[in-house]
Amino acid sequence: MFDKITVIGCGLIGSSILRVIEKKNIAKEINAYDKSKEVSSYLAKNFKFKICDNITEAVNNADLVIISSPLSSYKEILSQIQSNLKKGSILTDTGSAKKEINKIIKKSSLSDVTWIASHPIAGTEYSGPQSGFAELFEKRWCILSADENTDKKEITKLEKFWVDLGSKIKVMSFEHHDYVLSLTSHLPHAVAYSIVKTAISDDNKFKDDVIQYSAGGLRDFTRIAASDPLMWKDIFIDNSENILKVLDNYSKNLDEIKSAIKNKDSKKLLEIFSSTRKVRKEIIEAGQDTEKPGFGRK
Amino acid sequence: MFDKITVIGCGLIGSSILRVIEKKNIAKEINAYDKSKEVSSYLAKNFKFKICDNITEAVNNADLVIISSPLSSYKEILSQIQSNLKKGSILTDTGSAKKEINKIIKKSSLSDVTWIASHPIAGTEYSGPQSGFAELFEKRWCILSADENTDKKEITKLEKFWVDLGSKIKVMSFEHHDYVLSLTSHLPHAVAYSIVKTAISDDNKFKDDVIQYSAGGLRDFTRIAASDPLMWKDIFIDNSENILKVLDNYSKNLDEIKSAIKNKDSKKLLEIFSSTRKVRKEIIEAGQDTEKPGFGRK
Repeated sequence: MFDKITVIGCGLIGSSILRVIEKKNIAKEINAYDKSKEVSSYLAKNFKFKICDNITEAVNNADLVIISSPLSSYKEILSQIQSNLKKGSILTDTGSAKKEINKIIKKSSLSDVTWIASHPIAGTEYSGPQSGFAELFEKRWCILSADENTDKKEITKLEKFWVDLGSKIKVMSFEHHDYVLSLTSHLPHAVAYSIVKTAISDDNKFKDDVIQYSAGGLRDFTRIAASDPLMWKDIFIDNSENILKVLDNYSKNLDEIKSAIKNKDSKKLLEIFSSTRKVRKEIIEAGQDTEKPGFGRK
Repeated sequence: MFDKITVIGCGLIGSSILRVIEKKNIAKEINAYDKSKEVSSYLAKNFKFKICDNITEAVNNADLVIISSPLSSYKEILSQIQSNLKKGSILTDTGSAKKEINKIIKKSSLSDVTWIASHPIAGTEYSGPQSGFAELFEKRWCILSADENTDKKEITKLEKFWVDLGSKIKVMSFEHHDYVLSLTSHLPHAVAYSIVKTAISDDNKFKDDVIQYSAGGLRDFTRIAASDPLMWKDIFIDNSENILKVLDNYSKNLDEIKSAIKNKDSKKLLEIFSSTRKVRKEIIEAGQDTEKPGFGRK
């Protein structure tokens, strides 16, 4: 479908994309670029595709360019590559929030290049190219977003690409994406960071005990709170309006539990706890998690 | 070590204890009691040990009695069994909070019976006897708590019992237990219930999307929020003082993140997110979680 694909930013997500493209022979030519020398040298040692030293050279003649770097790097990257993108090519990304990128695209002078955003809902708590793997996108959702006047044929081409990588596709507006993700991903991250900080910051007097007895619930949260800090500070700033709104709703729900505890209101607590139990069942039925107790861990 | 063991309350934890005792021949005689006819009939169909219809008959002549029912049932159970406990026997429980049980024990008229609390830090998001399994306690911590004047030999006997079940033992005071668990278990549950409620309560307009795209973080929280509501409302009421205190600290940490988002303070966000990343590594090093990405799930 695409003769030449370029990936800019080769961390967990970018390197996983490169791995699948190479493994499944999805493109005739693959270019990779990362501004870190360490990342480039890791890739050069482990893969056959071309590692470029120069970002403008990397995108040269590419039919699909994928930006897979932290959101705060987009502006600089766009300014560097915009005049070198091939006419008729597709430009996409893998970012978790879509507000800033759209502002940048609108200000840029892309001509004859189709911008379609991608967001693969896949990842782990690890980061860097050594953490990537070719199966990362298998059976995972990839959300595509584009302006209403975007050529449907181009969207179909990008859909096909992600399907080749193993993904299931959903197309939605940028705004809908940012709101839904603030609930399913950004809110959980804000909460996880706060709870882990609370559990360990207590003068560190209880820290050893907290680590040892974390199986009572805390350990589930530490996975999310171990996510890449650089990537996440960008997401929080980019999607701040939605995140602050859902954090307010969240605080109201937490206050409801607090009052019920203070008032020893068994009935209210039972009502809240029962309502959330069903959600997990629905997530498992939707194929989005394992039904094995404790995620199947021993 | 114990000729006769009685388990009162045969849900996830109680039935798992019964399974190990039977599987490893830990006692010559095993009695089980559950006030639910459904539970009793499930056990009778699937196990060889004795299912008693009557709670006083169940504890008769037992050397170890284990109460493994919701905290709110303790008072009634104690009043029913206290005059029937064997002289020289040990009474224990498996509850997640220790305040109420100690009040009840102090008011009761136990004579020649040693009370030592147990709390196996083991469990899954499922409940009921059909969810139990003999390996539940393997390599998991079991925290024992007793008054200072408790006979050390009796504590050693109970320790030996839990070690036979596969557990590692830690002895700590009731107060220390309740505080540490408020951080590692009770706070995470309060937060998980609140976040899942926030994600789905939004007029239900986005509910289907929230379920589908939950792999972005939310799904990790739904496991904890699927825990037994009956058991958890009791824990929140029993350990309310500690829980309210740590919830206040937690709210302060969340407010810090909120302000940083409002002020687009990258430096502060990066600092918070970096501090929590290390904790997961320490939990894995302590053998309390898997290092496999995403808990090893596909």
